[in-house]
Amino acid sequence: MYKLVLIRHGESTWNLENRFTGWTDVDLTPTGVAQAQQAGRLLKEAGLDFDVAHTSVLKRAIWTLWHCLDQMDRQWLPVRHSWRLNERHYGALQGLNKADMAKQYGDEQVLVWRRSYDTPPPALEASDPRSERSDVRYAGLEPSQIPLTECLKDTVARVLPYWNEQVAPAILSGKRVLITAHGNSIRALVKYLDNIADDKIVGVNIPNGIPLVYELDANLKPIKSYYLGDAEAAAKAAAAVASQGKA
Amino acid sequence: MYKLVLIRHGESTWNLENRFTGWTDVDLTPTGVAQAQQAGRLLKEAGLDFDVAHTSVLKRAIWTLWHCLDQMDRQWLPVRHSWRLNERHYGALQGLNKADMAKQYGDEQVLVWRRSYDTPPPALEASDPRSERSDVRYAGLEPSQIPLTECLKDTVARVLPYWNEQVAPAILSGKRVLITAHGNSIRALVKYLDNIADDKIVGVNIPNGIPLVYELDANLKPIKSYYLGDAEAAAKAAAAVASQGKA
Repeated sequence: MYKLVLIRHGESTWNLENRFTGWTDVDLTPTGVAQAQQAGRLLKEAGLDFDVAHTSVLKRAIWTLWHCLDQMDRQWLPVRHSWRLNERHYGALQGLNKADMAKQYGDEQVLVWRRSYDTPPPALEASDPRSERSDVRYAGLEPSQIPLTECLKDTVARVLPYWNEQVAPAILSGKRVLITAHGNSIRALVKYLDNIADDKIVGVNIPNGIPLVYELDANLKPIKSYYLGDAEAAAKAAAAVASQGKA
Repeated sequence: MYKLVLIRHGESTWNLENRFTGWTDVDLTPTGVAQAQQAGRLLKEAGLDFDVAHTSVLKRAIWTLWHCLDQMDRQWLPVRHSWRLNERHYGALQGLNKADMAKQYGDEQVLVWRRSYDTPPPALEASDPRSERSDVRYAGLEPSQIPLTECLKDTVARVLPYWNEQVAPAILSGKRVLITAHGNSIRALVKYLDNIADDKIVGVNIPNGIPLVYELDANLKPIKSYYLGDAEAAAKAAAAVASQGKA
């Protein structure tokens, strides 16, 4: 049996401001730092240890990992970064306030933008200063790999190659893997692992900074999964995520 | 022409307490964090950028790197960790106060322990609880690779293979390399790069948290080297390091 741990980054400045973030590279808040440290303590108390960590190229996930590793005294663990673990790209909504958008376009439209499986938000123009096409961290990619918007289906499509080529082989080789990532890149993994239907994934919300443990069989099929720590707190935090897009 | 940047970690809790640290894994102080952040700002202001970073498996060097990368918005840079970049092992002196030892054994003896090229301090017993032989981060090494004490000559001997096999090929392949490490692993590199004689390296002291830039020719021979920022402050900080072992 294998174990895999997924952690959504701690609260970010734009989580706090209730803004659509996507690939925008915002910092953790002090609360987010505390959540990340608490996640590390929970992992240590649970006796979980790791051989390698994977994270995105966005600093809210990277700092979450660093604070976790620090609490576990595993600062020296090998870390792999990939744009494929980035948050879903939020297109032209990046930077805008979720509740403002709900007032302007209605709760239903915002829910579609936030949670529709295959309808992406309006796209950024490639020339938009918010576009990441000139960002040095993506310089090795084809322009077509750098999204201008994504629906969750698009996110799944770019997360899964990383799972198949990097993460799954590592787990099968006996490495204990920790992933710190984002609400939607983790939803993409959860959808795949738990084989959740396209129309059911809308109900899955990932709270900030709480370790999600998967116990996997020899074929990496989930035996069970659970949040570490206070289960009620995790459920509450997930419900809070679900309600962010309401006016 | 190539550029290489070396940074000794910021002030650690045991630098502050004036204790022999070696492989003991102590934290940065708040001053050390500020030094690391300042190092990152200096690098950014100087227009220096990197493709890969190398550091030790000790958290004072790792956190120094993390704070630097954060100031440069390069949190996502690939990082390689190696025990070969660790501080010189201080043997049975690890944890003891430098000034106390000078009172007890005399300034001269402490200078020999601190700066003799080929006389190591008294060795730890392998069974000493301070020994790193049961530390999981060294589990992949032969016991004989995990020192019980080291003189600088020993440190040079284990740092250079890392230079030759990992760092030099990376630089020659065009990668811009940042190394955050320790007073004596950096002295080992400086001795090698500047071809400093065994009896002259005693006079070389590396200040905490100030980027040391090497400009290297096509054969990786130094054209020049300099500290970023205030040259006088760097000289003062190096002199302070030199005087730590006095009663």
